[in-house]
Amino acid sequence: MEIQIVSIIGAGTLGSRIALQAAISGYQVSIFDITDKALDFSFETMKKILAQLDKGGHLKENPEKILSRVYFTLDPEKAVKDADLINESVTEDIELKKKVWKQFGELAPEKTILTTNTSYLLPSMFADISGKPSKFCALHFHDVFYSRVVDIMPHPGTDPSLIPLLEKFGRSLNQVPVLVKKENPGYIFNTMLLALIGAAGKLLTGEVASVEDIDKSWMVNFHMPMGPFGILDSIGLDTAWHVTKSREDSASKAFAAHLKTYIDQGKLGEKTGEGFYKYPNPAYKDPKFIQ
Amino acid sequence: MEIQIVSIIGAGTLGSRIALQAAISGYQVSIFDITDKALDFSFETMKKILAQLDKGGHLKENPEKILSRVYFTLDPEKAVKDADLINESVTEDIELKKKVWKQFGELAPEKTILTTNTSYLLPSMFADISGKPSKFCALHFHDVFYSRVVDIMPHPGTDPSLIPLLEKFGRSLNQVPVLVKKENPGYIFNTMLLALIGAAGKLLTGEVASVEDIDKSWMVNFHMPMGPFGILDSIGLDTAWHVTKSREDSASKAFAAHLKTYIDQGKLGEKTGEGFYKYPNPAYKDPKFIQ
Ligand SMILES: NC(=O)c1ccc[n+]([C@@H]2O[C@H](COP(=O)([O-])OP(=O)(O)OC[C@H]3O[C@@H](n4cnc5c(N)ncnc54)[C@H](O)[C@@H]3O)[C@@H](O)[C@H]2O)c1
Ligand SMILES: NC(=O)c1ccc[n+]([C@@H]2O[C@H](COP(=O)([O-])OP(=O)(O)OC[C@H]3O[C@@H](n4cnc5c(N)ncnc54)[C@H](O)[C@@H]3O)[C@@H](O)[C@H]2O)c1
Repeated sequence: MEIQIVSIIGAGTLGSRIALQAAISGYQVSIFDITDKALDFSFETMKKILAQLDKGGHLKENPEKILSRVYFTLDPEKAVKDADLINESVTEDIELKKKVWKQFGELAPEKTILTTNTSYLLPSMFADISGKPSKFCALHFHDVFYSRVVDIMPHPGTDPSLIPLLEKFGRSLNQVPVLVKKENPGYIFNTMLLALIGAAGKLLTGEVASVEDIDKSWMVNFHMPMGPFGILDSIGLDTAWHVTKSREDSASKAFAAHLKTYIDQGKLGEKTGEGFYKYPNPAYKDPKFIQ
Repeated sequence: MEIQIVSIIGAGTLGSRIALQAAISGYQVSIFDITDKALDFSFETMKKILAQLDKGGHLKENPEKILSRVYFTLDPEKAVKDADLINESVTEDIELKKKVWKQFGELAPEKTILTTNTSYLLPSMFADISGKPSKFCALHFHDVFYSRVVDIMPHPGTDPSLIPLLEKFGRSLNQVPVLVKKENPGYIFNTMLLALIGAAGKLLTGEVASVEDIDKSWMVNFHMPMGPFGILDSIGLDTAWHVTKSREDSASKAFAAHLKTYIDQGKLGEKTGEGFYKYPNPAYKDPKFIQ
């Protein structure tokens, strides 16, 4: 089977980026959301990213041409009627995703490959309710343009012949496909990132080292532009707290409690102007930071 | 107090690099080892590194001038008689280090700051036997030239006034000093690196993902030249096994057992020509690896 028409459900941060990259790669794309406002946001997001890519000389066509392949819609039937592949990127909420998969599993044609971009839930939670469990798989993107890994995570009932199709599809979107060989609570990169952040959190709450010295150690030894606390600020302390607090070990509990003190002060990271650092000019971006 | 004369005990991989960087930074340096062979190795290592630095235009003086500040010696008394600071970089063995600190604690002048570069042992293990516990501190380098973090880890009896002196000394060696505020089994960067490697090991032994997909995920999302298994190959699987097998949790045990299967085949990583990858041209260095 050849994937030609792609349908994205949920036109938020990730949905917009996946849809845009699919259009850039030449696919015909429809993108669905439940409000005009969401679709407007999506359109503006795509235009901004395209302008940046164009400026950097990364586009082979002009932005208008690329955008002409994206069809924005509030109509669920039209959204998926010809889809070869659906990627669902709605809000991370199990009940919402179940509802969405019941709806689109019914609306989608027989041929359609059904994929979810969920970050922390598992494909088996939605496979049955979609009505086509063998066609169902997680296809999890990162930031699409800067971080180009796409995790393919089948559930036990996924038809194995989907895997090479999804790998090929991922490559065609300029992503690097990696296979999570079995359902696992955590994709490959995220599992390692969480371990790194957990270790950094433990050094901090154990009063072994400061935020700055922890970040410096990582940045200087690995020549990286930010350390774990800079990364946390960009992920959002609220997101990090949600993940950390669900863990059982005492170090995670201590770090979750520490994150909570920031959240209670409205310090969620870059998006609120403050987290472990102050934005738009965080200390770690000053060249003097690592001198 | 002003540090002017530096004495390095142990002229191996790390000792030679620290001594060389001290000479480059203008210090008068003595370097001590127990065999001529070790000193010859050290001299050759320094010449090689200097040639590379010179080629890259990183030296302000010519290599001969820099080397003229290094005094190679097999005589322990001469090695430390005027030292303002000693850094001990002998083989990682607790009994050997105790012996060395008893010897050099007695030989060193009153003024000398005593530092150990131990990777996994603690300064408090040697502070008393040196006879000058308040002058004793860990000062732990990484690779000196590529990874420029230096950890300062006092033990409970370290005179706090040493800390700013060591920070200044670290900066003068073109390193970025970070403070481990209290004795901790693991420096800052190493703690995080081990957590990353542990998570990668667990993904592998749990049969969640392949070596290649784990490394790709890290390399592509973080734009890094290698992933955790490439890093393990450069650290040496024997070193990694020593650290991993001392841990109690089942994931570490499983990964230590996995590492052992490589070690038993003589695959210790880059230094033996094979580890997780084959050298000198490991798969991850091929641009196609992340396509
Ligand atoms: N943000 C990230 O970095 C990231 C990375 C990888 C995966 N994800 C995952 O992608 C998904 C979306 O995340 P996001 O960051 O884009 O969230 P977001 O809040 O930016 O967007 C979610 C969108 O879903 C829409 N939506 C809500 N209910 C809907 C419905 N019934 N039908 C259609 N659309 C509906 C919302 O209006 C919103 O536009 C989540 O599962 C998240 O875990 C996010
Ligand atoms: N290799 C690394 O990446 C690294 C990084 C940071 C710290 N360290 C630490 O630095 C220390 C040295 O490690 P290395 O990799 O340079 O080891 P190495 O084996 O390359 O060198 C050790 C040197 O110590 C010498 N030695 C043995 N007994 C001695 C004695 N009684 N007196 C003087 N010298 C003696 C040996 O002859 C040898 O030249 C260890 O404590 C290690 O944990 C190593």
